[in-house]
Amino acid sequence: MTPRDASSPLLTDLYQLTMLQSYFAAGMRGEAVFEFFVRRLPPGRNFLVAAGLEQLVEYLTALRFDAVDLEQLAATGLFDDEFLAELDRLRFTGDVDAMPEGTICFPNEPLVRVTAPLPEAQLVETRLINLLHFQTMIASKAARFVLAARGRSLVDFGFRRAPGAEAGVLAARASYIAGFDGTATVIAHPLFGIPIFGTMAHSYIQAHDSEIAAFERFARGHRGAVVLLIDTYDAEAAAARVVELAERLAAEGRKIASVRIDSGDLDALSRSVRKILDRAPGPRIGIFVSGGLDEHDVARLVDSGAPVDGFGIGTSLDVSNDAPSLDCAYKLQEYDGRPRGKRSPGKETLPGRKQVFRRYAADGRLERDVVALVDEPRDGEPLLVPVLRGGEPVATPPAGVEAARRRCRESLDRLPPALASLERAPAFPVEIDASIERLAAQIGATP
Amino acid sequence: MTPRDASSPLLTDLYQLTMLQSYFAAGMRGEAVFEFFVRRLPPGRNFLVAAGLEQLVEYLTALRFDAVDLEQLAATGLFDDEFLAELDRLRFTGDVDAMPEGTICFPNEPLVRVTAPLPEAQLVETRLINLLHFQTMIASKAARFVLAARGRSLVDFGFRRAPGAEAGVLAARASYIAGFDGTATVIAHPLFGIPIFGTMAHSYIQAHDSEIAAFERFARGHRGAVVLLIDTYDAEAAAARVVELAERLAAEGRKIASVRIDSGDLDALSRSVRKILDRAPGPRIGIFVSGGLDEHDVARLVDSGAPVDGFGIGTSLDVSNDAPSLDCAYKLQEYDGRPRGKRSPGKETLPGRKQVFRRYAADGRLERDVVALVDEPRDGEPLLVPVLRGGEPVATPPAGVEAARRRCRESLDRLPPALASLERAPAFPVEIDASIERLAAQIGATP
Repeated sequence: MTPRDASSPLLTDLYQLTMLQSYFAAGMRGEAVFEFFVRRLPPGRNFLVAAGLEQLVEYLTALRFDAVDLEQLAATGLFDDEFLAELDRLRFTGDVDAMPEGTICFPNEPLVRVTAPLPEAQLVETRLINLLHFQTMIASKAARFVLAARGRSLVDFGFRRAPGAEAGVLAARASYIAGFDGTATVIAHPLFGIPIFGTMAHSYIQAHDSEIAAFERFARGHRGAVVLLIDTYDAEAAAARVVELAERLAAEGRKIASVRIDSGDLDALSRSVRKILDRAPGPRIGIFVSGGLDEHDVARLVDSGAPVDGFGIGTSLDVSNDAPSLDCAYKLQEYDGRPRGKRSPGKETLPGRKQVFRRYAADGRLERDVVALVDEPRDGEPLLVPVLRGGEPVATPPAGVEAARRRCRESLDRLPPALASLERAPAFPVEIDASIERLAAQIGATP
Repeated sequence: MTPRDASSPLLTDLYQLTMLQSYFAAGMRGEAVFEFFVRRLPPGRNFLVAAGLEQLVEYLTALRFDAVDLEQLAATGLFDDEFLAELDRLRFTGDVDAMPEGTICFPNEPLVRVTAPLPEAQLVETRLINLLHFQTMIASKAARFVLAARGRSLVDFGFRRAPGAEAGVLAARASYIAGFDGTATVIAHPLFGIPIFGTMAHSYIQAHDSEIAAFERFARGHRGAVVLLIDTYDAEAAAARVVELAERLAAEGRKIASVRIDSGDLDALSRSVRKILDRAPGPRIGIFVSGGLDEHDVARLVDSGAPVDGFGIGTSLDVSNDAPSLDCAYKLQEYDGRPRGKRSPGKETLPGRKQVFRRYAADGRLERDVVALVDEPRDGEPLLVPVLRGGEPVATPPAGVEAARRRCRESLDRLPPALASLERAPAFPVEIDASIERLAAQIGATP
């Protein structure tokens, strides 16, 4: 990837461009309404957390074909000059309505609605799905860790096995929105203001002639909180060395914040190491664990009362290991004033431009969502809010990771208890309003 | 992601930088040898296909901290001026030896060996794993599709549900190396010269008032091979419309290349649609299928004799759905002339700088690999070749997707038949030479 590539309009499927050429040639520039939604939950999910909107807005507002893009398209031989001139002029001029990031959501609910001239709304499909799918998937996975950790610290360690650079960075972002405390990925700090955390690698210990020499050098030279990795050889022996070191450092006013255990029986080791560390002088030394943990591992350690203060979570988060994709789509719901749908088996769509109305129980918990037509509103809190109008951000767009994180925290607190469990719960009630069903029945005979 | 970010040296874990500060302060700049390897195969894999080296070389040869990077690091308060000055000067000056892309490989074999001053070799760990892990995982998954398709066409459709932009682009690359015919992702063509393919979306059909009008408009306006999507409403009825259209177009010298079916019972539909299409005049109209297919679906369709000419493969490829991560690592094997290892339970490493020697049976098939110390070579073809020397590419580096694709094709042809099956085969024999075991025993008492 060269620099321009990360925001290139050529990050799209070829068919978008060939369809566009046909639309332009036919003068099909009428208003189209597309909605992005998830068709069904993976087995291991009771809800989803919407994320990725900020990156989508960046993409849409920056969308343009530069001279190099147009040359590269011309070189394929698939496009005529008239069409390339259209692309040269093309900007996203449409409206976007969306659930703010951090909103808890469910299948068949539109997370994002795009209303724009058909070619623009169609062109953006590929990257729109790419951005919304990934962060929504990761935020939804991360929320499970947050529920499992019950207030203990969670840090994203996943960049190395994240699928590419963008995935690593956006996983740091999505997990922070869901309630992680931060990430090890340095660039997430300047990009998004996310707190960054670091410990040390086994190689640091191995590069020294003795473990205690490595601990001492790191503790004396490090400016931030000192976290010592104790499982390179023998975690309990290393914990005893940490205590000796803490005693020597205490005399100089220095301290050790935590130890990290990255392998072995974390439940047993955290207990034996806790006892050893409690012999150290000064402030309590914390225990941080890592090493291929998923949310069930976190829940087991927390539930068993293992004295673990925090968790480093890597691969299982950044690839959403138990559900590495969501069955989602961006579908045409209306064109040129007429509702549209398809009947492909298992992939039927609900036509019309829609809104989600959320209702709460007396105790403030989520009770029921109603998906209804925008023109026929129902009771409840409308979840989709204006984001872009005529291609420009609205005055008060829902933006920023901190706002999204707060929204997610508040939403998680209002989840019905069964949905907040790691186990599969009965589906949250999402009612499709009768007006939509009527519309779907009407478009039966189109072909 | 802003443009600079995609190649930023801040795409790393915080601990790399804090360890580096310590190394520089202590003058620990001795030569380090790190190796990247996969610890074990996921259940659904008999072998892996090495990929990602070209991107790694780009990263290493371009590595530098610019003024903005250094400012952002200074702002964290974790780093002193002396260290930041070191980073300002830092370049990758080491050696890299690696298996060329497209090489079939197995657990415990080093795919890449980095020999460099300790700070350089350590710093690059995070992005090195990130690049090699993802493409190796995708190429390994893609090879299974190639084996299953037995010569039928395969096209990557996965960008939209790939985890981010870089993943989508690199999945197109890795699957092409493994033998796919191309991708739908436009930018893969200018970036890597990979052939691009496109059909049409359901929304194109839905935006028209009738299916036949959509077919006709597309067929008349499209410059490339015309592929018509026939499952928006009823695939067999649509196939009959395709035949009518083909008759009308034949008079004008135009033709329809294929139809695509994206849902339903693909085996039954491909047979009934085949019969309908055979009534059309002119060259045979092909059948292309897609819709959530994995390699087992492809194998079933091929084995049952379904008249399918090609497959569009999306999510299951781009997220490697049955094995969305590989258990891999980049480990210090030697520092300052001494072999290094760790004993963390389940994560023991094999010390020393190593080479893989591949032996072939009389019929040319792979027979056995031997992992041995570089200084004690064994019989067989050495798989790791020089790539960088002193930070510069060697005169004839193994590079380019076409060379990698040929190598993979030749390697797949030489697989023992059991390994070439989609079912789990007995492990391919990878012998760890006794000299390595002796070395591992020696570093017992380090701490």
